[in-house]
Amino acid sequence: MSLIHKILNSRSDDDGNFFLLLKKILGFQPKELYFYRKAFTHRSMNKKDNDGNSLNYERLEFLGDAMLSAVISNYLFKQVPSGDEGYLTKMRSKVVSREHLNELGKDLGLITYLESKIPKKNFGDNIHGNMFEALVGAIFLDRGYNYCAKFIRKRVIIPYIDIEKLEGKIISYKSLLIEWSQKEKRTFNFEVYEDNGNDPVKHFAVKLSLDGKVIAKARATSKKKAEERASKRAYYVLQEHIEIK
Amino acid sequence: MSLIHKILNSRSDDDGNFFLLLKKILGFQPKELYFYRKAFTHRSMNKKDNDGNSLNYERLEFLGDAMLSAVISNYLFKQVPSGDEGYLTKMRSKVVSREHLNELGKDLGLITYLESKIPKKNFGDNIHGNMFEALVGAIFLDRGYNYCAKFIRKRVIIPYIDIEKLEGKIISYKSLLIEWSQKEKRTFNFEVYEDNGNDPVKHFAVKLSLDGKVIAKARATSKKKAEERASKRAYYVLQEHIEIK
Repeated sequence: MSLIHKILNSRSDDDGNFFLLLKKILGFQPKELYFYRKAFTHRSMNKKDNDGNSLNYERLEFLGDAMLSAVISNYLFKQVPSGDEGYLTKMRSKVVSREHLNELGKDLGLITYLESKIPKKNFGDNIHGNMFEALVGAIFLDRGYNYCAKFIRKRVIIPYIDIEKLEGKIISYKSLLIEWSQKEKRTFNFEVYEDNGNDPVKHFAVKLSLDGKVIAKARATSKKKAEERASKRAYYVLQEHIEIK
Repeated sequence: MSLIHKILNSRSDDDGNFFLLLKKILGFQPKELYFYRKAFTHRSMNKKDNDGNSLNYERLEFLGDAMLSAVISNYLFKQVPSGDEGYLTKMRSKVVSREHLNELGKDLGLITYLESKIPKKNFGDNIHGNMFEALVGAIFLDRGYNYCAKFIRKRVIIPYIDIEKLEGKIISYKSLLIEWSQKEKRTFNFEVYEDNGNDPVKHFAVKLSLDGKVIAKARATSKKKAEERASKRAYYVLQEHIEIK
């Protein structure tokens, strides 16, 4: 195989892998890989486009941050018709908080695919949130507002947004369940195990059983988060079947 | 004519007028008048929907503010490929400043159509910007992101956004033109007159002539603004025909 063929093949293999990875993360097909390459490029690579403009994820953060805010605003506006401006603004800032965005980026393991000259262990926590914002920006440029909203619904709203919890009415679903089971004399059990699957980031999986029967499962990057997520799911399962308040 | 017919007729006349007004303001057809009715209703009317939720423009401001920010972010991102995050954030905050939004709402004369129990002269300047944001929110709910972006392009970006001016490189197009004409020994003339047309808000119109020939016209709510706007247009006309820097 000639050198040029080798380069072309490796290039297309690489694109193919990147495409599949993105498809898995996004939940739909990317069209133009160029935007996503940017979203996974750190400034330390010192890349420039043909016009000499920096080619890394930093500008995309600006765009993604604004799109995230727009999509979440629309969600909250519709979800809480009784909430006034002040309430909606407070809820939005909880959802798009630095801490929360870092968690989102970390859970998706975005840093694993980052091109960087700086060793990844040297980065602080904010890299995860920044990369998440940049990814949202890239999706907007590639597929427009509606796909961007679709991604945010799938990755932010469904798994993370819980109005009652954001309002501080429910601090922890785990303690809610423990309290309820003690009162009702039911037996709850959490079985936690490490489950990395193909992810480069460490994950924990939880099986939550009630009287010996598994009623909810969850997976997250920490034991505590996985337990809480499984408890939330169990809470909604129980709400449908039994009176739990 | 029966009473019920009278009511229905007056209702549909009213809707018809509101529809035409909106079409003029938006530059395209509204679909669902309900959202816009809200955008033109002040809290003093004390209106509620069937579920008891407040029916006025305040919550729409929250949504419109986020959409405005998203659309302007996308515009700036594409328009200034060399601008970093800090630059883009600064530019955006200039465009969506309270002062600027108030100007936009005032120029569209939105307050004229506001339903309110409080006399309109009692409102401060912020009502104009708030109503503008609410209108953007209503457009988003009625027609989605793309129409919302279209409206913002027509009403905010094209007539108002000028990167060079925002950057402070050009303070005033009027002084730029005066300077140039003195240097080039050309005669500039501004003819300003009141021109209210059908607008309830006072407007000024300007004709700008170079050596006796009208080369730009503009209209705005103050003499100074109309002159500046005409100067900006003249500047671009001259840039295309003559060397003006």
